[in-house]
Amino acid sequence: MTTDTADAPHASLSGRLAELEAHLLGGDRRALARVLSWVESGDQRGREMLRALYPRSGRARTIGLTGSPGAGKSTVTNELAKSFRARGQTVGIVAIDPSSPYTMGAILGDRVRMTELYSDQGVFIRSLASRGALGGLSAATQDVVHVLDAYGKDVILIETVGAGQDEVDIAGAAQTTILVNTPNMGDEVQTLKAGIMEIADVLAVNKSDLPGADRMVSALKALLSLNPDRGWDPPVVRIVGTRGEGIDTLTEACDSHFEELRSSGRLEAAELARARQQITSLARANVLNRLHTESGEQRLDDLSAAVAGRLADPHSAAKAWLAEL
Amino acid sequence: MTTDTADAPHASLSGRLAELEAHLLGGDRRALARVLSWVESGDQRGREMLRALYPRSGRARTIGLTGSPGAGKSTVTNELAKSFRARGQTVGIVAIDPSSPYTMGAILGDRVRMTELYSDQGVFIRSLASRGALGGLSAATQDVVHVLDAYGKDVILIETVGAGQDEVDIAGAAQTTILVNTPNMGDEVQTLKAGIMEIADVLAVNKSDLPGADRMVSALKALLSLNPDRGWDPPVVRIVGTRGEGIDTLTEACDSHFEELRSSGRLEAAELARARQQITSLARANVLNRLHTESGEQRLDDLSAAVAGRLADPHSAAKAWLAEL
Repeated sequence: MTTDTADAPHASLSGRLAELEAHLLGGDRRALARVLSWVESGDQRGREMLRALYPRSGRARTIGLTGSPGAGKSTVTNELAKSFRARGQTVGIVAIDPSSPYTMGAILGDRVRMTELYSDQGVFIRSLASRGALGGLSAATQDVVHVLDAYGKDVILIETVGAGQDEVDIAGAAQTTILVNTPNMGDEVQTLKAGIMEIADVLAVNKSDLPGADRMVSALKALLSLNPDRGWDPPVVRIVGTRGEGIDTLTEACDSHFEELRSSGRLEAAELARARQQITSLARANVLNRLHTESGEQRLDDLSAAVAGRLADPHSAAKAWLAEL
Repeated sequence: MTTDTADAPHASLSGRLAELEAHLLGGDRRALARVLSWVESGDQRGREMLRALYPRSGRARTIGLTGSPGAGKSTVTNELAKSFRARGQTVGIVAIDPSSPYTMGAILGDRVRMTELYSDQGVFIRSLASRGALGGLSAATQDVVHVLDAYGKDVILIETVGAGQDEVDIAGAAQTTILVNTPNMGDEVQTLKAGIMEIADVLAVNKSDLPGADRMVSALKALLSLNPDRGWDPPVVRIVGTRGEGIDTLTEACDSHFEELRSSGRLEAAELARARQQITSLARANVLNRLHTESGEQRLDDLSAAVAGRLADPHSAAKAWLAEL
């Protein structure tokens, strides 16, 4: 790459970054990968690229997938990606799961299916395992989604393991959230426990060729009927991810939900809520970063010693520490 | 009570509060209860009382009890309290568990045992279910412990359900932490899962008259052997809480751990860490309170709209929001 273009088209970016932006917007996957790495790690260059790219985002549809480990989320994600590709839409996949086949290798069947996607230039797959990013995993994921969106992906699939609150929040921040279930009692209980039903717009019963699928479908419908007034009636779709069965129905269910969001005006409300949530978590992280500087830590050590020695009470010490800001 | 004592002994407290402090330090349980209510709810008077009382704290021994729901923690807590009382030590009990028999009523057997404690003036029981306190449940619990400590309790037992990270942290913040297990496989798995073994100083196998107790003891010992270099070898104590069996051994195990903490100098390190943790969580909560004022919320609304409309990126918006502080 050449360098030094003081008169770059984007005044806010320096020469190299403006060039990188041009490459990215031109469809260069390596430029995209580099920017995503910066964004994930909290690098200042990532911040600058994001500021420049963000106005170009907001066009992609976002779909979150969550569910228990073993529910087959990666398989469903793959099949959905293929379904959107078959319509000519480009796809970004963000997998947030340290044990995801995208990062850790996969069983043979999965690997074969995934290789298809990897070799498709219309698909870009990014695995996000880092929790070190500023503002937490949720804010980092949204930044990655913004960049893929600005890059031009039509649909962005965000796959998270539905174990922690963070992961559930991430999937719930997408326009449409699919909860992937499987026909067995353990999952049924887990579904109830996590209160995850409230964020699900579409319910998929994966592995629905297994015994117990009917019971799972009934259980989910019964659960949904407990909360009828959400302005959208989440469909329950039976699929067999490994054979691609029911995937088109699932894609259509996502489409219907998106249309409902758009026509009801709830799409904008959701986008507003998402923006608010990201600003809040970034601001909180920013404050923590400013408190935990080297001098802030030193002051905290001194104050902790004073509190431990009963020379100051914890509330007064907290106030004194904040005075550092 | 009489009022208006401008020349109260404690310059930092106003007349009424100084009087209340004097009553509390004189052993008045109603004064104690009132101060604890203020402390829990984040009332400014609680803050002032705490500032005055805190220098008198630091003498009580603190023992945390955690474990799965159904492990019999409340029973063990009761029995430990009686054991300390039998030695002539006074006891404070802080139960953090919305389903605790202290708040919710109990099965008959429990009620009988607990009534004994309730009628003992040497025992003060406080149930803490509120999560609304500034700095979260952990900071509120520590404030309650400080007040009971200043009030003069010799031993403070802190019972938490070992389900959430908060609760585990609270039990772990005590000088000695007892993990209460029962002989069944489910608990065994849960023990592993939560990584709770690392905070346990003493392991109790409750209901050890049930089948599977030997296996549970072996499993726990095997788990402990995986982490041998912690400077203390956590004993595994078999008890039958409902019959008081093994409780004296458990009390002695707590004593041994405390002696080890003291002689090794780790007691001070732990106190320092606890102080540091409380200062940090109070400071964080304080910042959040300052951000989420009415005008702060209004500004956040405006910034969210700008981000949703792609007029500003989330990082710049977060920066702008913080500029309000």
